Amino acid sequence: MSGWPDRRILDLFKIELPIIQAPMAGANLSAMAIAVSEAGGLGSIPCAMLTPQQAREELANFRQHSKKPLNLNFFCHVPQAPDAVRDVAWKKKLDKYYAELGLDPGATVAAANRAPFDEAMCAVVEEFRPQVVSFHFGLPEKKLLDRVKATGAKVIGSATTVAEAVWLEQQGCDAVIAQGVEAGGHRSMFLANDVAAQPGTFALVPQVADAVEVPVIAAGGIADGRSIAAAFMLEASAVQIGTAYLFCPEAIISSVYKKALAQARDDNTVITNIFSGRPARGLVNRAIRELGPISDAAPAFPQAAAALAPLKKAAEAAGRHDFTNVWSGQAARLSRTVAAGELTRQLAAEALERLYSKR
Amino acid sequence: MSGWPDRRILDLFKIELPIIQAPMAGANLSAMAIAVSEAGGLGSIPCAMLTPQQAREELANFRQHSKKPLNLNFFCHVPQAPDAVRDVAWKKKLDKYYAELGLDPGATVAAANRAPFDEAMCAVVEEFRPQVVSFHFGLPEKKLLDRVKATGAKVIGSATTVAEAVWLEQQGCDAVIAQGVEAGGHRSMFLANDVAAQPGTFALVPQVADAVEVPVIAAGGIADGRSIAAAFMLEASAVQIGTAYLFCPEAIISSVYKKALAQARDDNTVITNIFSGRPARGLVNRAIRELGPISDAAPAFPQAAAALAPLKKAAEAAGRHDFTNVWSGQAARLSRTVAAGELTRQLAAEALERLYSKR
Repeated sequence: MSGWPDRRILDLFKIELPIIQAPMAGANLSAMAIAVSEAGGLGSIPCAMLTPQQAREELANFRQHSKKPLNLNFFCHVPQAPDAVRDVAWKKKLDKYYAELGLDPGATVAAANRAPFDEAMCAVVEEFRPQVVSFHFGLPEKKLLDRVKATGAKVIGSATTVAEAVWLEQQGCDAVIAQGVEAGGHRSMFLANDVAAQPGTFALVPQVADAVEVPVIAAGGIADGRSIAAAFMLEASAVQIGTAYLFCPEAIISSVYKKALAQARDDNTVITNIFSGRPARGLVNRAIRELGPISDAAPAFPQAAAALAPLKKAAEAAGRHDFTNVWSGQAARLSRTVAAGELTRQLAAEALERLYSKR
Repeated sequence: MSGWPDRRILDLFKIELPIIQAPMAGANLSAMAIAVSEAGGLGSIPCAMLTPQQAREELANFRQHSKKPLNLNFFCHVPQAPDAVRDVAWKKKLDKYYAELGLDPGATVAAANRAPFDEAMCAVVEEFRPQVVSFHFGLPEKKLLDRVKATGAKVIGSATTVAEAVWLEQQGCDAVIAQGVEAGGHRSMFLANDVAAQPGTFALVPQVADAVEVPVIAAGGIADGRSIAAAFMLEASAVQIGTAYLFCPEAIISSVYKKALAQARDDNTVITNIFSGRPARGLVNRAIRELGPISDAAPAFPQAAAALAPLKKAAEAAGRHDFTNVWSGQAARLSRTVAAGELTRQLAAEALERLYSKR
């Protein structure tokens, strides 16, 4: 059996298998990253919902269990000024659900906790010097980006269009993720603003590969050996896989989320902005049906999540995912329930088998 | 060099190359089908906008120039009862454009000319006995379908979800087309009704392959050798390619359409219902921006096209595609300008090269 047809990402990140476990804020921590990196892929720790202190603890835990390369991931949205009028209007739309669930509509809700990359997080990067740092929603300001690059980290960004990929390369990214419309969770969209015009993985990956010189990492709809092999045919040098890892015991999702995810099919996820204020793909549920999928009333990212949080908590306590952001891509059905390290090895073996023998 | 990794469609249709030229009503006739079939692929003649007599002429022309297999394609929507109130309201929305273009808003417009498969067309199939008959928007009533099958034709249908693919197999289709969301032109959707939940090619093809036993033909975002090779990795047995053939001299599209198509990129097409009443992917233009992309006011298929026709004609006469349905998939940018027969040969050679050497 021969090796991988394209070694650019393997050589760049110094990993053995061209599989990046997608950083999933709120759904994975160091345990999953350790398992994937130890298996030879690239594990990722998402920091968007962590404090710098929590990030330090996860990094310390990773380093204690693995000497392998690691990807540290950050959001880098520009925080919007508070908009109390908008927040109140959004809350008002949710009042009937508060009443239905026996919650006090007058109670203060906590602010949403998805924070952009900043000085404090940059200090964490400088302290731990991960092999790879990835950004979602564009890139941080140049001063911070330069500091990250000065640590020797390879920097990658996520593009949902060719134009975004070209921009990321121009800003100095060492590789770009081509995030097709099939992908679960938040769309990285930062130049693009029309959800309806977002391209699928099949169309996006080769056009990005034609437009940039850095290696391309395919994401969106990839969950088994067949789809990894297909990504390589489209000129990807690696894949980033999210949803399939949610089925692993290392995922820290609620039992309600896990149960809902088992119902995800090819045709029952949509891109919605109601859960956070930014477009993200998730399983169609009551909240999406009644409030979205796209709502002009949703406060700016990440504030839309704030008023929904008590509803999510109360509904989950009753065993329902009515108000849960069940992020999922369109290929959840291809997933299997197995530990993250074993999943990484199985996917790689099946992709090589398909690339070299299935012809 | 070895042969194709999966020969099921080649054997079923008795063709040499696993490339089906997509039937494009209004954009191709027998000349393109002849070129593709003679090159070893499967040429298609779309009949949705032809009278039975015109279909006979195209078939006679094909047979005069080729003894190779041919695909005859039909729409099979259920015609809706005329709805004058709705038509008038739609026309009213367009009044300002009529005025702007110097047209008489009071002039009677011709009815839209996309007709479903019927007795008269079934007689054409029985007379010419094409190797393959394909249907869009589901399948015709059983009585007609049985007559088509009795001619010996292989019958294929187009699915936009796993559920639609399973249904088509249950109704007796010999193969199913998995039409990913990247595809240009009309979505085949006949059980599915939520455009926002339509899966991309990457997610759809392997899930359809897992769900049906008949061979799967991948469509959507396929326009070069890389994407054909990728489709085979996803377990497709052939591909159907539309947009790339619009760049061939055999395409009968207007020069305005051709010029607009050259501007199609990964991120400027959307699915719209304004041009016909059913969802179809096309280049974003003035009509889509100002009336759509999805409008509840659009009359049922195909009637929405009627009142737009004079606007399209007048704008095109002025060199503008403001009101033209510029159908295009998301991978138009991967296309080349070459004759249809040569394109078919090039695509096949490049796919084999990628499958066997690029590793």
